[in-house]
Amino acid sequence: MFAVIMAGGSGTRFWPASRKSKPKQFLNITGSGPMVVETCNRLQPITADEEILLVLGEAHLPIAQDLFKGRKVHMVGEPMGRNTAPAMGIGAVYARHLGCEAPVAFLPADHHIGDQQALLEALQAAQELARSGGIVTLGIVPDRPETGYGYIRQGPGHGRFRGLPAYEVREFVEKPDGERARDYLASGEYYWNAGIFVATPETIMRETERHLPHLHQALLRLKDALATPEFATEFRSVYQDLTSMSFDYGIMEKTREPVYVIPCSCGWSDVGSWASLYELREKAHDRDGNLVEGDALLMDCSGSFVSGAAGRAVVCLGLDNCLVVDTPGALLVARMDRSQEIKKVVDTLKRMQREALL
Amino acid sequence: MFAVIMAGGSGTRFWPASRKSKPKQFLNITGSGPMVVETCNRLQPITADEEILLVLGEAHLPIAQDLFKGRKVHMVGEPMGRNTAPAMGIGAVYARHLGCEAPVAFLPADHHIGDQQALLEALQAAQELARSGGIVTLGIVPDRPETGYGYIRQGPGHGRFRGLPAYEVREFVEKPDGERARDYLASGEYYWNAGIFVATPETIMRETERHLPHLHQALLRLKDALATPEFATEFRSVYQDLTSMSFDYGIMEKTREPVYVIPCSCGWSDVGSWASLYELREKAHDRDGNLVEGDALLMDCSGSFVSGAAGRAVVCLGLDNCLVVDTPGALLVARMDRSQEIKKVVDTLKRMQREALL
Repeated sequence: MFAVIMAGGSGTRFWPASRKSKPKQFLNITGSGPMVVETCNRLQPITADEEILLVLGEAHLPIAQDLFKGRKVHMVGEPMGRNTAPAMGIGAVYARHLGCEAPVAFLPADHHIGDQQALLEALQAAQELARSGGIVTLGIVPDRPETGYGYIRQGPGHGRFRGLPAYEVREFVEKPDGERARDYLASGEYYWNAGIFVATPETIMRETERHLPHLHQALLRLKDALATPEFATEFRSVYQDLTSMSFDYGIMEKTREPVYVIPCSCGWSDVGSWASLYELREKAHDRDGNLVEGDALLMDCSGSFVSGAAGRAVVCLGLDNCLVVDTPGALLVARMDRSQEIKKVVDTLKRMQREALL
Repeated sequence: MFAVIMAGGSGTRFWPASRKSKPKQFLNITGSGPMVVETCNRLQPITADEEILLVLGEAHLPIAQDLFKGRKVHMVGEPMGRNTAPAMGIGAVYARHLGCEAPVAFLPADHHIGDQQALLEALQAAQELARSGGIVTLGIVPDRPETGYGYIRQGPGHGRFRGLPAYEVREFVEKPDGERARDYLASGEYYWNAGIFVATPETIMRETERHLPHLHQALLRLKDALATPEFATEFRSVYQDLTSMSFDYGIMEKTREPVYVIPCSCGWSDVGSWASLYELREKAHDRDGNLVEGDALLMDCSGSFVSGAAGRAVVCLGLDNCLVVDTPGALLVARMDRSQEIKKVVDTLKRMQREALL
């Protein structure tokens, strides 16, 4: 099964560990290796390295080449970030160029999957379903009324594929408030949108043509330039004129193509903040609920996450619900329950033109 | 007026800024220069440099020599710390050796004085009183029911010296609990014990002979060795056998010599913790009550003290009542109201044999 791994994110909510020069997907934040490598490795039972395409920022090609040294993973370096619609578009073009006509899996590079087998089974079911057209998305079965994710609401059943039930998608819904999230969970009709899609390159191109014609024109130009020496120049010139657009917003919410969801309980997390990483790694907590990395001494602390990656000693005294991330160039100390707002910190540093810290 | 500056403290409560190799009294923590230099400078109107003796740890002689380069301040480097009774004893011996028979001021090197004039007037009054014998201590007029200091209770009046009233001392009392501290404040009879004493070298020696005969023997040996090449060897051998003893406990609480107190409102603080430094520097607080040093960005923080002395950017988000001290070798993050316990942190690091961090 061909897979397009979208590794173009900026990961600002993991500042200061995640930096412009080496964002989240290239970091080993879950403790089991760089996320993008993990994402590729977990596909190995169904996807050979030469069937993987990484779409990433061109500035990160050297890091990725280093991480995948000796492996035949394909890479395409975007001259600038334009969100997922262009990234999936270039993925579809590239997959087609490599001779792939079957449904392709599009997956974010920086998510955590607890149950590899469940993911692979759902992807294979999705592939079977997508052969006959349409776009299939995996719907993560929620286990809590999470307000930080978008949801997918299921419609009528659409049969079984490799033993797994599929449903038509009734609607994609934005992040809900707490009350609504509890209703969603209780109804059993809603799934988390993990941004994982399966469709043939042809379907992606056709949908792009229908809903994002400007992007479609750009992709056609790139398709023609793909194996030529002009590709890099063309890529830059084409991308410069594109507007940023997510696949969810630009295509999924508008398409009249049949859209399906296959429910999946694969221990998924988008690892979207330090707080979610802290929760994800619950097994590594000490008895006071602290998660500690590096040379750190905690005295009378609880519910805190201390990451001492700067090779210096970190001592914490009397902290509760705190986040301490020590890196060689910058130090962050925050209340853990404010970790979603670290994006604002990065925005502020940007406004302050603190380039060295981004 | 001859002055003995006691600069042998370890300043562990200011870890990690204060380290074994450069403790608190050599740091510029109040923002107006190294504390020991400030302590000497504020005496200048009444004490020439050549009338100053610094008693400090021998390991810190190079730092002190550097800080007082080109100045004629005397220094004696103790081979090991033995608390204030031996330090004041060697101060008395040394002062006598330099020809001083008049009352000497003994002052800690690491305290803050807001009102220099008030201190100098009290010291001069104390000197006049001490000429006729006895030990005079300055009593800091309390302005709050502080539980972190020892107190001095006044007895009957003992006249006026240079216009300032003096009292016999009724008793020295240990750090009180909150209720007692409020009673002390209300009574008007109690003063904070700042560890500032004025007495002739002869009085110090006589009192030492009476109450600490072992120390007295040691001081006599040192007196004989003072100008000889054997002094360093003798100093070490004599000090090795001494037990640590504070002047308060070893002499003041036992003496039958007349002991006097001269009340003094000189804006004194022992700057005994990060929290007390934070309070002392109230004028430098921002409108949310944060005190910030170095390259630090605070977002939505209050009542916090962030000291970024490591040349790295420190970003704090959503903190309240927090202390962040970033130094090149170690980082401390603590609740500000736990800053008294930093001493325990240092004890723990000692037990863990983390020598490089001490």
